[in-house]
This record gives sequence, C-alpha cells and structure tokens, in this order.
Amino acid sequence: MTVSKTTQTELIRVAHALADAARPVTLAHFRATGLAADNKDAAGFDPVTIADRGAEEAMRAVLATVRPDDAILGEEHGFKAGTSGLTWVLDPIDGTRGYISGTPTWGVLISVRDDSGPLFGVIDQPYIGERFAGGLGIAEMHGPQGAAALQCRAPRPLAQATVLTTFPEVGTPEEGAAFHAVARQAQLTRYGMDCYAYALLAAGQVDLVIEAGLNAYDIQAPIAVIQAAGGIVTDWSGAPAHEGGQVIAAANPAIHAEALAILRQTLHG
Amino acid sequence: MTVSKTTQTELIRVAHALADAARPVTLAHFRATGLAADNKDAAGFDPVTIADRGAEEAMRAVLATVRPDDAILGEEHGFKAGTSGLTWVLDPIDGTRGYISGTPTWGVLISVRDDSGPLFGVIDQPYIGERFAGGLGIAEMHGPQGAAALQCRAPRPLAQATVLTTFPEVGTPEEGAAFHAVARQAQLTRYGMDCYAYALLAAGQVDLVIEAGLNAYDIQAPIAVIQAAGGIVTDWSGAPAHEGGQVIAAANPAIHAEALAILRQTLHG
Repeated sequence: MTVSKTTQTELIRVAHALADAARPVTLAHFRATGLAADNKDAAGFDPVTIADRGAEEAMRAVLATVRPDDAILGEEHGFKAGTSGLTWVLDPIDGTRGYISGTPTWGVLISVRDDSGPLFGVIDQPYIGERFAGGLGIAEMHGPQGAAALQCRAPRPLAQATVLTTFPEVGTPEEGAAFHAVARQAQLTRYGMDCYAYALLAAGQVDLVIEAGLNAYDIQAPIAVIQAAGGIVTDWSGAPAHEGGQVIAAANPAIHAEALAILRQTLHG
Repeated sequence: MTVSKTTQTELIRVAHALADAARPVTLAHFRATGLAADNKDAAGFDPVTIADRGAEEAMRAVLATVRPDDAILGEEHGFKAGTSGLTWVLDPIDGTRGYISGTPTWGVLISVRDDSGPLFGVIDQPYIGERFAGGLGIAEMHGPQGAAALQCRAPRPLAQATVLTTFPEVGTPEEGAAFHAVARQAQLTRYGMDCYAYALLAAGQVDLVIEAGLNAYDIQAPIAVIQAAGGIVTDWSGAPAHEGGQVIAAANPAIHAEALAILRQTLHG
C-alpha cells in the first residue's frame, strides 16, 4: 500500500507518543522492591510483570484515540483487527528477564507495518533515556549525549568483528552450534543485551546480532531501525525475518553474507 | 591502621573527585567512530584503548595533587608506592570489551584500601550517569532517577535467585563447570554485565555474582560497595577476595553459603 506523506508524519509522531506513554509505566516498576514476576512458560521461566501489561495498555489507549482504525499486535494483549491496512506491533518490555534483574538493556519496541513489512520502528530505553528510531526517511538516536544519526558500521572481516546475542545457548542445540560456529571466528562475542543489541548495531558499535526463537514483536522494530541505518536483517535462510524465528542482523551485506554462510553450513552441512 | 574521621571524609570526597575526573575522558571516546583497541593478550583479545589510559592518567593527576603520599595501584599504569598506609586501587574502564561494543555496562572502579582491605569504593557508569558508592558509613547510589540507598536483597532460595556473570565460560573449564552447577539451580542466569553486575547486587536487584580470573583492581571497589549494602564477597574457598581470582559476591550470608557449597562440591568433589 502507499502511505501518504501526511500519514507518514503522523505515524512517526504517534510512534514517539507511544514510547512516551510507556516510559512512566516501565520506570515506575523498574527496580521497585517486591516487583512480582508471573511465569508464562510452564516448562521454563518466561517472566511477565505488571509493567509489561501496563505499558502495553498505555500504548493501546493512545492508539484507540489517535489511530483507531489501525490493527494492533502486542506481546501481552494479543491481536486487535483494524481496517486501515496498518498494524502497530508492540513489545512493551523486550527483555523482561533483564528488566527484573535491574539491567539497563531492556527496551520498549514499537513499530508500524503494512503488508510489505515494518515502515517505522522505535527502540526505547527509558532508564538511560535513550531512543533509537528508523524508517520513513529517519535514522536517529537521542540519549544522554544528545542526538546523533544512526549509521551501521562499514565492512570489516568477521575475524575483526563483534557479535552479540542474548542467551549463550541461542535456541535449540543445533541453532546454538550454528551461532557458536560464527562466534568462534569473530574477534569478540558478548551476551545479555536483549533488544539493546539491535540498537548498538544501528548505532555502528557492533557488526552482527544473531538470535533464534524470536517472535514478530521482538524483531519488527529492530528491522525498521537497522535498515534505516544501512544494515540488513534476514532469517538464517536469507529471507525476510518479519515474523521472527532465526534472525541475523548485520551491519552491511558483506558481513551478513560471511556469517550467513557459516550458519547455513553448520545447520545444513 | 586507624583512619581519622577527618581523613575518612577526605577520602570520600577524593573518590568522587576521581570519578568526576575520569568521566569526561571515558565519555569523549565512548562510541566514537574509529576508536582503536590495542590487544594486551598475545594469546587472546584483551583490549585497551586511549580512554582506559587517559582516564587513569586523569585520576592519577588528581591524586598527585590532593593525596600525594598515598600509594596507587592502577590497571594501566601499575603500582606507585606511598607512605601513608593507604592505597588507591583504580580500574579506569572495567569492561573494556563492553566499552568498545557500545554497551552501558562498563564502569570506572575506584577504591581506597588500608592493610585490612577496601575502606571505600565507587562504581561509576558515566554514560547512564549512575554512581554507586559504599563504605565508611555510606551506601548510596545516584542515577537518572535521583538518589537511593543501597541495600542487598533479603534471603531467598537459590531456586528463586538471579545469578550474574560476564562470560559464560567463567575462567577455566573446571571453574566454568562449578559456576554452571550453581546457575542450573538458579531461577535466572544473565551474562555480559561487567562490573555493573556488582552494582546491581548492591542495589538489591540480583542475588549472586560469580566470576573467576579477576584482578585486585576488578573487585576491590565492588567489595566496598557490596559490603556497605549488607552483602558478602569472598573467594570460592570463603576467604577474602581482595586480591581477585575466583570471586563470589552474594546478597546475604544464606545464599552465599548455598552457592559456595555447590562451587566447592563441584570443584573438589
């Protein structure tokens, strides 16, 4: 679909308004004494807190007022159909495990998509006061040091590259083996950054982020931000990663190709 | 030795002055385009940057003026003898790997010790604008949300606890096996936080930080801050950890004992 310039401006404004609405809710509970985490995963530990639910409700309340005809897909409150052809994809707290540990690496993920994929995305880190936005002609961050353009790194060999992922096991044992085949050839591998890893890729600080087992709401905002900064995000077969699953985000096509070849070689022999 | 109340007040003031002196140096190079990392480890990758060296020099310049008789042990510029019986222990950037990746989890570590161990310590995170200080009657943090007292968590069983470490391999294979024996029994394990992990322990956000292969300058400031917040830091035999090596930092004696027993059982059978 074609989105008019007026609507584009409106979508950017609304995305920031959603991030502004979520901030006080996530911050009110961050590091609060006695914050309780419910477990969404009977077989493991997938925590959700009052902050996740409340922040998504705050964003949905804004959308109900200013964009009532758009669809919404949110991690905590599911899918609401719309009629405009546009869908807001919301993860009120990406990295709830980090959130309940007090780390400053969780984020609020907001994106708006049409049938072609994400148009605009925001990665917001309320505690640091840092916001990364990209799409519809924008690629910029605001943070403690002011505003800056987002620009992914120029190509460098994998042997000089930095790779990020959140969990060392990275999905299934087979997926983990493929990830570590890449990581072993990199100069530096770091863990635990949640969605902040994608922000660092867009900010030109690292070369690759590789994860598995993602949901659509985990990756749509990062896709918009990273593509706007000149990077590339696909699944491990090189296809669009809009729906999640196995994701490789790369600073440039060269290192994307180098890492993708190792992932595929390791997975498929 | 006995440190007079007047001297105590002076040491606290100087520690904050050192953190203030290091901040502009570390921030000037953080996320800068083209920041070069030299490798200190011929067998691996142990990066050091102009920011590490410059921040330590800035702190040594302050000490030369205001505390010329104290000794200094710094990661980048070594040991300088003194005559006062007090030693400043400085790590200008703890977590240089995180620093060169753009993560906000590195910190400036500053402590002052006498022959009994650390008296006062500071963990400073300049990008977030967050400072954790403890010892000599102080246990407090200042950050984006203002000031707060530091207080470690009350006891909870390991099965409900959060454990942090920086590198999944945690030292040697034997040390890694011991760590993972603890982590498997915890509710949540997170990686990659560098010295910020110790700050989160002092802030009551997590229950355990377990690392190996540390140096004295990596752990003396965290010891002061965590002990001031009611926590306990030892090596994996339960002895003082002032000189680094294998370190376990715990929110309270109960979880310290529970985790230490698993570490020792795994290492020594």
